[in-house]
Amino acid sequence: MATGNINVSVENIFPLIKKFLYSDHEIFLRELISNATDATLKLKHLTTIGEAKVEYGSPVIEVKIDKEKQQLIISDQGIGMTKEEVEKYINQVAFSGAEEFLEKYKDSAKDSGIIGHFGLGFYSAFMVANKVEIITKSYKDEPAAHWICKGTTEFTLEEADKKEHGTDIILHINEDDKEFLEENRIEELLVKYNKFMPIPIKFGTREETLDLPEDAPEDAKPETKTVDNIVNNTNPAWTKQPTDLEDKDYKDFYRELYPMQFEEPLFHIHLNVDYPFNLTGILYFPKMSQDMNIQKDKIQLYQNQVFVTDNVEGIVPEFLTMLRGVIDSPDIPLNVSRSYLQADGAVKKISSYITRKVADKLKSLFNNNREDFEKKWNDIKIVIEYGMLSEDKFFEKAKDFALYPTVDDKYFTFAELIEKIKDNQTDKDGNRVILYASNKDDQHSYIESAKEKGYEVLLLDSPIVSHLLQKLEMGEEKVSFVRVDADHVDNLIKKDEEKISKLNEEEKEKLKTDFEKVIPKEKYSVQLESMDSNAAPLIITQPEFMRRMKEMQQTGGGGMFGMGNMPEMYNLVVNTNHPLITEILNTKTEKKQERLIKQSLDLARLSQNLLKGEELTSFIKRSFEMIK
Amino acid sequence: MATGNINVSVENIFPLIKKFLYSDHEIFLRELISNATDATLKLKHLTTIGEAKVEYGSPVIEVKIDKEKQQLIISDQGIGMTKEEVEKYINQVAFSGAEEFLEKYKDSAKDSGIIGHFGLGFYSAFMVANKVEIITKSYKDEPAAHWICKGTTEFTLEEADKKEHGTDIILHINEDDKEFLEENRIEELLVKYNKFMPIPIKFGTREETLDLPEDAPEDAKPETKTVDNIVNNTNPAWTKQPTDLEDKDYKDFYRELYPMQFEEPLFHIHLNVDYPFNLTGILYFPKMSQDMNIQKDKIQLYQNQVFVTDNVEGIVPEFLTMLRGVIDSPDIPLNVSRSYLQADGAVKKISSYITRKVADKLKSLFNNNREDFEKKWNDIKIVIEYGMLSEDKFFEKAKDFALYPTVDDKYFTFAELIEKIKDNQTDKDGNRVILYASNKDDQHSYIESAKEKGYEVLLLDSPIVSHLLQKLEMGEEKVSFVRVDADHVDNLIKKDEEKISKLNEEEKEKLKTDFEKVIPKEKYSVQLESMDSNAAPLIITQPEFMRRMKEMQQTGGGGMFGMGNMPEMYNLVVNTNHPLITEILNTKTEKKQERLIKQSLDLARLSQNLLKGEELTSFIKRSFEMIK
Repeated sequence: MATGNINVSVENIFPLIKKFLYSDHEIFLRELISNATDATLKLKHLTTIGEAKVEYGSPVIEVKIDKEKQQLIISDQGIGMTKEEVEKYINQVAFSGAEEFLEKYKDSAKDSGIIGHFGLGFYSAFMVANKVEIITKSYKDEPAAHWICKGTTEFTLEEADKKEHGTDIILHINEDDKEFLEENRIEELLVKYNKFMPIPIKFGTREETLDLPEDAPEDAKPETKTVDNIVNNTNPAWTKQPTDLEDKDYKDFYRELYPMQFEEPLFHIHLNVDYPFNLTGILYFPKMSQDMNIQKDKIQLYQNQVFVTDNVEGIVPEFLTMLRGVIDSPDIPLNVSRSYLQADGAVKKISSYITRKVADKLKSLFNNNREDFEKKWNDIKIVIEYGMLSEDKFFEKAKDFALYPTVDDKYFTFAELIEKIKDNQTDKDGNRVILYASNKDDQHSYIESAKEKGYEVLLLDSPIVSHLLQKLEMGEEKVSFVRVDADHVDNLIKKDEEKISKLNEEEKEKLKTDFEKVIPKEKYSVQLESMDSNAAPLIITQPEFMRRMKEMQQTGGGGMFGMGNMPEMYNLVVNTNHPLITEILNTKTEKKQERLIKQSLDLARLSQNLLKGEELTSFIKRSFEMIK
Repeated sequence: MATGNINVSVENIFPLIKKFLYSDHEIFLRELISNATDATLKLKHLTTIGEAKVEYGSPVIEVKIDKEKQQLIISDQGIGMTKEEVEKYINQVAFSGAEEFLEKYKDSAKDSGIIGHFGLGFYSAFMVANKVEIITKSYKDEPAAHWICKGTTEFTLEEADKKEHGTDIILHINEDDKEFLEENRIEELLVKYNKFMPIPIKFGTREETLDLPEDAPEDAKPETKTVDNIVNNTNPAWTKQPTDLEDKDYKDFYRELYPMQFEEPLFHIHLNVDYPFNLTGILYFPKMSQDMNIQKDKIQLYQNQVFVTDNVEGIVPEFLTMLRGVIDSPDIPLNVSRSYLQADGAVKKISSYITRKVADKLKSLFNNNREDFEKKWNDIKIVIEYGMLSEDKFFEKAKDFALYPTVDDKYFTFAELIEKIKDNQTDKDGNRVILYASNKDDQHSYIESAKEKGYEVLLLDSPIVSHLLQKLEMGEEKVSFVRVDADHVDNLIKKDEEKISKLNEEEKEKLKTDFEKVIPKEKYSVQLESMDSNAAPLIITQPEFMRRMKEMQQTGGGGMFGMGNMPEMYNLVVNTNHPLITEILNTKTEKKQERLIKQSLDLARLSQNLLKGEELTSFIKRSFEMIK
């Protein structure tokens, strides 16, 4: 038996690293600036613990473009490297100096914010450059070094005469990648990836207008001064303690994150946890519309203040991807698939931590200022309702603050609602019946009838509401939701009331036959009811069960298979106590009776939005003639 | 100056390859089966050219699970390796045997279908296994070899007693990855990635029911036979020549691709090109609904019959991502970003080739069987209209086959339409006015009025239609589109016709004042017109420009900024020649006049779907009373 060692051949792996290490070429700049940041933070740490004798000062990272020479230059004033260190860290692919540093200074450097990990980032430079130079001087008293590599596995290394500690990376940009010599493109990348990194990044200069002294003459022109153009905010709100921030700071930071967003966020949630994982961040509730899909992908994910992605799927529970803000955690594995992420233990914990924090915040908002919470309800309900549907733990917590608004803008919690309706809205079998409407306009006449009985009518207009009702009904005994147009008002909540009909059985029989002669059977089934004589003579209703199943199927997931395609069927409720119905019954000429029934049916259909097209046109024409 | 060579340290890079090579762990199976396929195809090639003396036979690749030993085993009957070859190909990470093979047999092996490329695929096994064994015997007359590696850089290599040529890969699956010992999971992966690979893949066995002989007694039970369960179709339709396929074959293949899809595709397009890039595939037009977003990501992308992804964004023009089918091309770079893809020259050519093929197919369908094409139009128009909007080259080609249906189900091309309407629908300034409706029901009365004048009315109901009209108008001089409810019918297409009003100027003045007293000014502006006395007394219209700008803004991209939020404003057209209007003018009591105007306005609002909520309820109540 032979044993041996597996070999990695540089000639083979080097082109792979250059070409395929990152799926996006633009990443090279993020990597190089992360390295420059690490080099600076390392120096900071060594001066703090007294190991480096140089002065730390106020170091910046500078990015410069030299179009003529086709160069992009990234300079830092950090720790630098000796010639030996270049040999060690640069010439050995995948040897991470950052890991070694963190290992060496394990205890003291834990919170230094150092980013580097795999020791591959530097090589991403070769994705866009055919030649890369490093000019570097260590903080130690040793000569500077100059390393040059033309993208093959060969390099040259010699002494250089750089005097100040720090590192310059000079990229000789490929013909194909000239976009990275454009100021706009570089600025765009710096803003995208490095906007909140902890060391100031200088990119060119800008003119700043100075304030005039107070005693300046009226025609004095303000002076301008050329200042460094610093692209990043080194101290973003999420890295601070919540106690150090005021409401205004959170709003300002929101504007920093979303400069094109004019509307203010409704409220924020500051995330801050050390154990069992590290995570900071700020989430905002924006005003939300009904369309869930449009609003995703606004949360930005950072690792140690470096922007990583705006796709937080798998990390944040789906119903919260409609929020905005930032999450910063070094503990989220990035280079793995979404399905793997969802199975990862740490990520699961992060996701449930975020859910809990959101629920806690909502509860405290509700407790501290209910009036304000009610005002915001319609702008946030889609998130909460969707969360209640999709996460059972959130459903439990949401019981405390989820609101059920009525058509008259009263807001109840579920418990309050049940309490409120229990007297007037319990039917003869002891079921508490909650009435609701999905649209105040479309169901106006039905809402009015219910209100006349003293019933509360909820306004539930989210697209997923039928799924939510189903879940609520399952969680509570003897509670059911019924839409106001599911039956005529006396049947919505059936009570033991004697109903007196003006018509005897024989008359009823005849009336039903008369109606069925005129009305299309495949669409309407005639239902005679003894209602108040002031109620409408005809009402069109659609049973709750059927309608809800159809809706659930249309909005996906649930409902009964095949229901979505069933034809629309309605009940035509005929009020046997209404004078018009008596008149119809007593009309002798068949033609006149048919006309009366048809005109009445058209009016009933109008109030269910069912009269359309040619039928509506001829109804209008007929009605104009009747005015004359 | 010193020169030197960059080093890759195995200890450092090996963990990276193991962990981060692929973002999805499940990929390992695809890679190992690709290797097994290559090993088999190489042997096929060598037997064909006479270099291998063994018999090729009917080799299969077998996948086996041994739950007890926690092993997943992939076996092939291919070329195998000698001990020396294991040293060379396995122990050197990133040394691709496939590349070397293709280089060596450059001319003869060009079309052999060999997949391997980077020599990294094998190591993906370590993403899910803590120990990997290779037992392999070359087709050459040399002893078999047994290689074992426990995931470190150390390995052992010894002789084995395997007799038949080929390779077994034995994975000792990690505790964390036990999902890959589940039959269902492996079957799922085989179907996802390997369903159309060229060598049969056996995964277990299944029972097959044998046909009964014709003379079998009635109560005879059919016999069953245990056969190999082959998971793949080694010869999928897209690899064949179009001339060898019939319509039924294409439909069968569609069902193979989408087993859960019950509806048949409308038609297919067979892609087949060698130069300047290699691409085969079949695209299908399914029946499409109006919602563009739901239907994406149904096209599958393959490379040499290995499934890669179902995200073809960047490769297929966006408007065609609503189609279904497969594309197979070894020339599409995969491990790069979408933005890079879109800039890639080869990919651009592929994208425009696909666009051209689709346009050619549509044109030939139109030319060969116009009647059938018209029948399919409503199911495919969303793709074509979206393509016309987004790709100028497609817009040019689509002129030949894009259809404009009327409300009466006549279908015109744009040229035919212009020809058809030029006599009757040219206004006094020489503009050819094309009338359209967006909804036959909602605009019924307006459509009827236009048809009474002998005008053609198109039915254009796609959500993006306002953008398309804008583009069509810009491309053609003196053509404009006007929706039927943009003005009353005489004004839609203004002609030099003398209009005679029954009312004199003074009466008109009074009538206008009477109306303006009753009608809310912020919603309606009153417009007196001398129309036919049989036309409606009141009509509500909304000017084309304003409505279209609003619509364009709502559907995104275009329109005028801020228009989307403007309040709805309508014109109330009063027909001064209608007897009801004369009656209103002559009504002496203010109260009665007001009632007449209000009831008329309500009827006019009904035909624009503007009467809602409380106003509708009281209109209906009033109307019920009028019946009595």
